[in-house]
Amino acid sequence: MILARVIGNVIATQKEKGLVGSKIMLVQPVGLEGEQQGSSFLALDALDAGVGDLVVVVQEGWSASTAATSVEGRAIDAAIVAVVDTIDLD
Amino acid sequence: MILARVIGNVIATQKEKGLVGSKIMLVQPVGLEGEQQGSSFLALDALDAGVGDLVVVVQEGWSASTAATSVEGRAIDAAIVAVVDTIDLD
Amino acid sequence: MILARVIGNVIATQKEKGLVGSKIMLVQPVGLEGEQQGSSFLALDALDAGVGDLVVVVQEGWSASTAATSVEGRAIDAAIVAVVDTIDLD
Amino acid sequence: MILARVIGNVIATQKEKGLVGSKIMLVQPVGLEGEQQGSSFLALDALDAGVGDLVVVVQEGWSASTAATSVEGRAIDAAIVAVVDTIDLD
Amino acid sequence: MILARVIGNVIATQKEKGLVGSKIMLVQPVGLEGEQQGSSFLALDALDAGVGDLVVVVQEGWSASTAATSVEGRAIDAAIVAVVDTIDLD
Repeated sequence: MILARVIGNVIATQKEKGLVGSKIMLVQPVGLEGEQQGSSFLALDALDAGVGDLVVVVQEGWSASTAATSVEGRAIDAAIVAVVDTIDLD
Repeated sequence: MILARVIGNVIATQKEKGLVGSKIMLVQPVGLEGEQQGSSFLALDALDAGVGDLVVVVQEGWSASTAATSVEGRAIDAAIVAVVDTIDLD
Repeated sequence: MILARVIGNVIATQKEKGLVGSKIMLVQPVGLEGEQQGSSFLALDALDAGVGDLVVVVQEGWSASTAATSVEGRAIDAAIVAVVDTIDLD
Repeated sequence: MILARVIGNVIATQKEKGLVGSKIMLVQPVGLEGEQQGSSFLALDALDAGVGDLVVVVQEGWSASTAATSVEGRAIDAAIVAVVDTIDLD
Repeated sequence: MILARVIGNVIATQKEKGLVGSKIMLVQPVGLEGEQQGSSFLALDALDAGVGDLVVVVQEGWSASTAATSVEGRAIDAAIVAVVDTIDLD
């Protein structure tokens, strides 16, 4: 899983039926200091994350889709699965 | 999932039987401003996307193939699953 | 999926039993103009592709292995699933 | 699988239900000499690894989630599956 | 799948139970001329490959784990599945 910041969302009326009713969020991967790492991508929201939240994103199809939609095998390859409170660096 | 622009398609008469009847589209990943990001690749069309459309592409085999063909386990690792109307950046 | 050119094959007498009887081909990813993109890798042949063919390669384990061997769960992560006739760029 | 050093952990009270009760560790991929390789990421702890441990991390959703939670299909794409004693370079 | 050279192995007494009894090998990806390509990583040994062998490595969790342990869903994302005799470049 990776750390990412929620930066927006995507509106799509024409979509695969497994995605109907799901929120597609734009997320920007970030490092431990909040710095950007690589390109933004799209993730379904398994919680109720908002823009600006620091989140944990899982990037694996089967598990991500099950988590985000409660239905197996949906056409998803990334999902927001946690909102981060704090990072402990020992 | 990632944002991509549909730029063409591939014609192949000799193909694995699970792909017969499916459209193989050429897609170019793009950023939030529409700029190219990385190399183009191939994705099956789960909707009826056309050349020039901005789309959401899922890159995961099992889910992508189920979405695009309605049959589990097809030999596919990417599918177009949504046509983007707008992107909201908050 | 990606476009690739078949450039050779690998001979291995000692191999996992799920691969016995399968052809392991060397493929070089290529761009739309046929130019090389990244490093060559190995893909099973689900069709009867020959050296020099422009092919579609799927890079996903479960689907690729099912396509190439007709048996689920074989130890494969890439397969040739189509031989390209033409590419349409609109 | 890759070698990584455990460098911290993430606290998240709001998370997908499949992750409740699991420890999300921060891991930094390292080379054979212990040098950093690429960016840190998050992995669930399938053992009881501590900060500073050199560990083996598996990066595959289905297997990683099963290993770390003993439940299939959890929303996980990386897990710590071994603590390294020694590396033999012949 | 990719070509790699076996360069060592990892000793870990504390590991996820699915890995007990399996050999974790260090492999270095190589090109067609034997030149190094990218970083070394860890792969389970599904055969009985030795240090110095040129091997075929599959990088996909489900299939790799089944091949290397004969048990489905083990926490593995790479396995050695063939020892290369020769490479034919036509």
